[in-house]
Amino acid sequence: MAPTSEPLTAERILEATEEVLRRHGPAKATVVDVARALGVSHGSVYRHFRTKAALREAVTKRWLDRTSEELSGIAADEDRVPEARLRDWLEALFRAKRRKAGDDPELFATYMVLAGENGTAVAEHIGDLIAQLARIVRAGVDTGAFAAADPDRTARAVFQAGGRFHDPCHARAWEKPGVEDDFAAVVDLMLRGLAAR
Amino acid sequence: MAPTSEPLTAERILEATEEVLRRHGPAKATVVDVARALGVSHGSVYRHFRTKAALREAVTKRWLDRTSEELSGIAADEDRVPEARLRDWLEALFRAKRRKAGDDPELFATYMVLAGENGTAVAEHIGDLIAQLARIVRAGVDTGAFAAADPDRTARAVFQAGGRFHDPCHARAWEKPGVEDDFAAVVDLMLRGLAAR
Repeated sequence: MAPTSEPLTAERILEATEEVLRRHGPAKATVVDVARALGVSHGSVYRHFRTKAALREAVTKRWLDRTSEELSGIAADEDRVPEARLRDWLEALFRAKRRKAGDDPELFATYMVLAGENGTAVAEHIGDLIAQLARIVRAGVDTGAFAAADPDRTARAVFQAGGRFHDPCHARAWEKPGVEDDFAAVVDLMLRGLAAR
Repeated sequence: MAPTSEPLTAERILEATEEVLRRHGPAKATVVDVARALGVSHGSVYRHFRTKAALREAVTKRWLDRTSEELSGIAADEDRVPEARLRDWLEALFRAKRRKAGDDPELFATYMVLAGENGTAVAEHIGDLIAQLARIVRAGVDTGAFAAADPDRTARAVFQAGGRFHDPCHARAWEKPGVEDDFAAVVDLMLRGLAAR
């Protein structure tokens, strides 16, 4: 990334950090590399992120947030029936993760290392996704389409039961033949499990 | 293992192989180590397993089969109602995997390496487990307790939806607080999804 006269924002630092991580890998990337890529002193970077660990956590969070933001519109779309929203939300999550893993496997592997270092950021991300699911489950209970005595518990179960299609430890399965039908079968089972009777 | 005058069977070789793997780890264990542990020549071992790869595959299969055998009795127990059998089967699978991972983490890690090398043995093992589940699903359809248009597909979905509680990539989650309730919530969701209405 060439030096520019744009003001040095946290977002620009995070973009450069991602680029440095992509180039050097998670073990070797340093704050000095990030500063050099931006054409600024490392002190300027430290004014935004006080430690290397804080910078790594922020770039992890940014990467995770991109997925949550993509999904939040589906969860919030009260104009659509909850079954369709739930299907779309699960499908969008699967596609987002699969795209991240498949389009840029090295960056994905890098973020897996960062995720391992930043358990709190990952836990918050998962909490955020489950809260989105709970919103859809609650909407379904309100319309009478779903039955769930405890929507938060049910949302968590839906998230975990779909883990094969979003947890990075299963990434290798996402390119196998038949994975689309496997996904559809699990979603069918979950939606039957949610349906009021 | 001290040399004995017992006849050299495949089972004794596999027992010794597991012990050698436990002691030396998957990278260093050799057929010579196995022969030495049994007090026989390595030629005698090769008469039972023609290559080191064949021996490693056989010991992997034996380890996997121990779980399938433990579960097959539950799947076949036609005296009990399918819902109870399914719950018990899933619980027995979770407990068996958790015990393997928790009681002897080094041997578990060793077998994870072996499983990575022996994709066919693992695929057969998973096929075997899904066939056991399909037997329970079909029994439920026969009694009218379950509804499943395609019991094999549904059995596969149940297996995959429960992956968090048996796939080794999730082993770290198995010791976390709340995992029992997470498991119960996923099983409840699946059983509601199976129930006829």
